[in-house]
Amino acid sequence: VEALVSTLAIIGLGLIGSSLSLAVRRGGDDIDVVGYDKNVEMAQWAQTVNIVPRFAPTVAEAVSGASMVVVATPIISMSKVFEAMAPHLQRGTVVTDTASTKTEVMRWARELLPAGVEFVGGHPMAGKEQSGAAAAEPTLFDGRPYCVVPALDAKPAAVGSVLDLARRIGANPFFLDAAEHDAYAAAISHTPLIASIGLFNVVRNSAAWPELAAMAGPGFRDLTRLASGSPEMTHDIALTNRENLLHWLDRYITELYRLRELIDGDDAAALYRAFAEAQLERDNFITNPTPQRNGPVKAPEMPSGQQMFYDVMIGGRWRERAEETAAAQAELQKARDRERRLRRQE
Amino acid sequence: VEALVSTLAIIGLGLIGSSLSLAVRRGGDDIDVVGYDKNVEMAQWAQTVNIVPRFAPTVAEAVSGASMVVVATPIISMSKVFEAMAPHLQRGTVVTDTASTKTEVMRWARELLPAGVEFVGGHPMAGKEQSGAAAAEPTLFDGRPYCVVPALDAKPAAVGSVLDLARRIGANPFFLDAAEHDAYAAAISHTPLIASIGLFNVVRNSAAWPELAAMAGPGFRDLTRLASGSPEMTHDIALTNRENLLHWLDRYITELYRLRELIDGDDAAALYRAFAEAQLERDNFITNPTPQRNGPVKAPEMPSGQQMFYDVMIGGRWRERAEETAAAQAELQKARDRERRLRRQE
Repeated sequence: VEALVSTLAIIGLGLIGSSLSLAVRRGGDDIDVVGYDKNVEMAQWAQTVNIVPRFAPTVAEAVSGASMVVVATPIISMSKVFEAMAPHLQRGTVVTDTASTKTEVMRWARELLPAGVEFVGGHPMAGKEQSGAAAAEPTLFDGRPYCVVPALDAKPAAVGSVLDLARRIGANPFFLDAAEHDAYAAAISHTPLIASIGLFNVVRNSAAWPELAAMAGPGFRDLTRLASGSPEMTHDIALTNRENLLHWLDRYITELYRLRELIDGDDAAALYRAFAEAQLERDNFITNPTPQRNGPVKAPEMPSGQQMFYDVMIGGRWRERAEETAAAQAELQKARDRERRLRRQE
Repeated sequence: VEALVSTLAIIGLGLIGSSLSLAVRRGGDDIDVVGYDKNVEMAQWAQTVNIVPRFAPTVAEAVSGASMVVVATPIISMSKVFEAMAPHLQRGTVVTDTASTKTEVMRWARELLPAGVEFVGGHPMAGKEQSGAAAAEPTLFDGRPYCVVPALDAKPAAVGSVLDLARRIGANPFFLDAAEHDAYAAAISHTPLIASIGLFNVVRNSAAWPELAAMAGPGFRDLTRLASGSPEMTHDIALTNRENLLHWLDRYITELYRLRELIDGDDAAALYRAFAEAQLERDNFITNPTPQRNGPVKAPEMPSGQQMFYDVMIGGRWRERAEETAAAQAELQKARDRERRLRRQE
């Protein structure tokens, strides 16, 4: 950001906007940061606790003279923010955003920002369940992926300044187009969100909730963590990435149903295999989070060398306990048959 | 455990058995702990690194003279362990276990353990995705719920000694019967496990996996954490708690489908409301993890004072952004219609 950005306006001082300010300023005071939030008390507070060195009372004042503007408001507010800032942007200003979905935001930018302003979409893959400036952290973006989605006509220097910003706050930028971004984000980020909310709801809505809550261990807490996220954000994601989200939710429901049928079936070896493969693949992901990136994609229909290795390994572990499992399964079946007979006799 | 237990045998030195040994011994050396694992090398190693002060080479030697035996093997191995230990248990010995499901284990104990031996089932609601003795921690049970499920004929003193054990390792014991336990555990513990595995699988099996993995943030990692758990454990849970697990998986799939339909629908207020309610309830759970325990259960059909408070609060937050949302929704609909028309003309 060194040479290109001298004044950075951050519009929206929620978790992301505030953390961004802290992270940028951690790198030095060479960039003049100004914050804006439609909640003026919040902006004032952010200045008082030095999240931003100063705040502007209007969008117009915030962006006037800014060499870069980061829009970090809720997604569906962004079109109004673009409209409000448009008359006040100087030629050559780089505008970027932090929205979780990109297609609609890129369209709004195309339609609403004036010619001569450079738009480069952005999406830092960071966050936590707490929202608001009070939850801000200068380290929020450290080591996190940062999606960069340049407008078709964005100049290389503008793209470069967004890459510099991403690196300065500790993130790892990489390029995607808007359609790719939204399809991938639906899978890796938005479907987990709905999965988490759904899981919390189904347990919470049980009449036995007080007992269930008392029994909850770390698994339930972690799996339902995202249900504590901002409902504004989830709502806006659902509205602006609907088709992709529905596609992945349907795939998730289908996979759950496949596991359900395996559990209901009699093939204990297949059941074990399903869980063992998931464990091996998840452990691979944790050990090597960026597998074959830019390399050939594994064709699911062709067993790779790795697949054959898994077959042998999982097979070996299974053989060790196959006898016990078969005996237990027979025992369980007998017990179930006995119960069914008893019930019929009643 | 003071007066009653002098020698404690731990059968199975995986994550739970090993952590239990460390947690018991943290409280002093008044209890003589002996460990057994069918993998003798593992037992030897556990002694070398002082997870257990000594190990026994056979189940028979481990339980001979023990005043309490904790069986911490995989669930479906437990019937064989009960058979193997039965001839060597002295009268009055308290036998307990740490299995994630209780109905089948209680039945095996009833059928296989000799008269005069006291069985009190147990299930510490603790764990982590790593398995094995190498992942053991003395603090694993600190502050965690510990389900205690006494056999119908268990003597009060035996029940008391298992309560003492649970407290000594830092956990909070509470009573349940086996059927209750398995129904509740299916909801709060086993369904999250399958939800986590399913989510990991559906993303991992995508042809875009390298790109998705590179984009993964903390949400995907946390939500899929349980997929790294022991496949043996998940398999045994599915086998011994099948009906309850299927019931809750079906409810989870139904709830996901309900959210899917809300997302696909046109009622943005209802969508917001669903996410906002989940957030408020999840935050309540984190603030007060044991709601109304032993108190009246909330009737879902009667709006409580709390429900009315939520209605007002969520309604207020919604009104603030309803106009923007309606405008964005109309815009999105227009864009979608435009695209559909263009596609038809092609």
